[in-house]
Amino acid sequence: MILSCPMPKLDFDVITLGHGSGGILTHKLLEAGVFDLLRNPLLDTHHDGAMLTFGGPVAFTTDSYVITPVFFPGGNIGELAVNGTVNDLAMCGAIPRYLSLSFILEEGLTMTEFWQVLVSIKEAAERAGVQVVTGDTKVVERGKGDKLFINTSGLGEVHPRAAISSRRVQPGDKIIVSGPVATHGIAIMSVREGLAFDTTLESDTAPLNHTVRALLDEFGSGIHLLRDPTRGGVATVLNEIARDTKTGVDIRQAAIPVLDEVMGACELLGLDPLYVANEGVFLALVAAEVADRFVGMLQSLPYGESAAIIGEVVAAHPGQVVLTSRIGGRRVVNMLVGEQLPRIC
Amino acid sequence: MILSCPMPKLDFDVITLGHGSGGILTHKLLEAGVFDLLRNPLLDTHHDGAMLTFGGPVAFTTDSYVITPVFFPGGNIGELAVNGTVNDLAMCGAIPRYLSLSFILEEGLTMTEFWQVLVSIKEAAERAGVQVVTGDTKVVERGKGDKLFINTSGLGEVHPRAAISSRRVQPGDKIIVSGPVATHGIAIMSVREGLAFDTTLESDTAPLNHTVRALLDEFGSGIHLLRDPTRGGVATVLNEIARDTKTGVDIRQAAIPVLDEVMGACELLGLDPLYVANEGVFLALVAAEVADRFVGMLQSLPYGESAAIIGEVVAAHPGQVVLTSRIGGRRVVNMLVGEQLPRIC
Repeated sequence: MILSCPMPKLDFDVITLGHGSGGILTHKLLEAGVFDLLRNPLLDTHHDGAMLTFGGPVAFTTDSYVITPVFFPGGNIGELAVNGTVNDLAMCGAIPRYLSLSFILEEGLTMTEFWQVLVSIKEAAERAGVQVVTGDTKVVERGKGDKLFINTSGLGEVHPRAAISSRRVQPGDKIIVSGPVATHGIAIMSVREGLAFDTTLESDTAPLNHTVRALLDEFGSGIHLLRDPTRGGVATVLNEIARDTKTGVDIRQAAIPVLDEVMGACELLGLDPLYVANEGVFLALVAAEVADRFVGMLQSLPYGESAAIIGEVVAAHPGQVVLTSRIGGRRVVNMLVGEQLPRIC
Repeated sequence: MILSCPMPKLDFDVITLGHGSGGILTHKLLEAGVFDLLRNPLLDTHHDGAMLTFGGPVAFTTDSYVITPVFFPGGNIGELAVNGTVNDLAMCGAIPRYLSLSFILEEGLTMTEFWQVLVSIKEAAERAGVQVVTGDTKVVERGKGDKLFINTSGLGEVHPRAAISSRRVQPGDKIIVSGPVATHGIAIMSVREGLAFDTTLESDTAPLNHTVRALLDEFGSGIHLLRDPTRGGVATVLNEIARDTKTGVDIRQAAIPVLDEVMGACELLGLDPLYVANEGVFLALVAAEVADRFVGMLQSLPYGESAAIIGEVVAAHPGQVVLTSRIGGRRVVNMLVGEQLPRIC
């Protein structure tokens, strides 16, 4: 693997407990790696926190990433942690600005692996246009972690035209998905221990903020709700929406984009793609009158080529999601019960 | 143990992987516990992030807590996670307002233990006057975590009179410690596997924000720098200050408050209290002309009874910390090398 930033020469190859002590080893680790790589004026103050100024309302979000394996087709835990939190902010109608970055490293993690993750974080932050401004590093004993866990919390300025709220969802709203579903979950599963099958699938992890911002610029309050269907998949998020808004949700199976290879894998494994985790995909609930233009514009934007209207909000069956199948049957789609794919994000 | 909030009747006793799936089990866990307990209007929106408004500059900080054992004399990981992040904000000269709360739970954690931690979080947040406004819960397989890890990120409004910056530190500044050092580390060590010794010591974990705010109200820009000497202890933080400010630090051993019992344990274990972790203690570097009044006021405030001037910033030996011992000898105090007490926070 060729890294855009080569690892500096260090006098250690693996992470030890001492690297989490707060003392000299912690400084060596941070100064060799994190600070140099992520350098920006806010991070460089080396204080316990960063000082920020905002022009208006702020969205605040957090996520811990525990995905296994840490390196997967299409990405690694580092860019996932950046993109995931960037996307959560975008789903709030915010323009992501600042991230915190907190590592829980397992003793024995190689510095080479950690460096790869750090470089991915740097690159993902640049792509998304966010700065890592504060952080923390802890080390746990071997067998008390799983290589590395990452928490990213994020701050963004709410887009001046955004009015994202489940209270604004109403019957008639169109439900749009930005891209093919279930790709991330199936890509991860393809490399899971004991589940390996042949595929060239890659995770769709991606920063959605630039795409969402362009849509907010154009459609403003015509966008009622945005959600990214990560854990639990599209089915779970639509159930949450139906429950929170006390409306019904109707979706059409034939309208939901799924890559052929993903559908094949789902059939092989007995999975319903509606429950499989996504990363680079979002759901938008928009006013009916802008829906067609919204999809048209989304299809022209990055990560939106396969966007489609997959259903609508209805007054009937409040709190329930009802799917019309390819052959015309109708069935209730419940929230995910138990777990389908552990540790997918 | 009597809890201020009894645990609701649940249909599960232990955390399973399904509780991290994002589906029904995750909802059951969150709705039974987290949301009810921490209820506030911002958290109740159930979106991916919280919407906040600030009147001025904002401090942003993050910390992951991996302490073992999770329950220790004087507290548990929950209140530690709240107090620690509250204190990091206070050290920025900020008034803590909002926290995010992210759990990494190990499969098999009992709901009773998790509930105790949640209640402690609720109580600690109330004491500190902060709201938990957004969160995340992941579950990892047994043996891939250690009961539970918590990340708290925090936001606070910078005190209008605060001017905290390592750039403001100058020769002549007095160095003040707010309370006896090394108590937290020794309390944790007293219950560590294989290290148990007899003591009634408790961790000094505490929210320092109200105390710091009162001092900022009174002394404003007379306070040049605030730091909490957690991992690595007082010695490591003073070394960081000396290095960052390119000044020297002189401290007097006889002036540094240490509880007798802590000193006894340190002697027994061959530890230097200057390197042992603290939680409810901070260091302040203040203008010489306000130092005596600062200490006087601090001694009248919560957690400040034992406050003392322990040294000063000097132009000599820039980058170095020099200790004058009880018997008058002088020696350089280095940063912590390796690790003294693993997973102390």
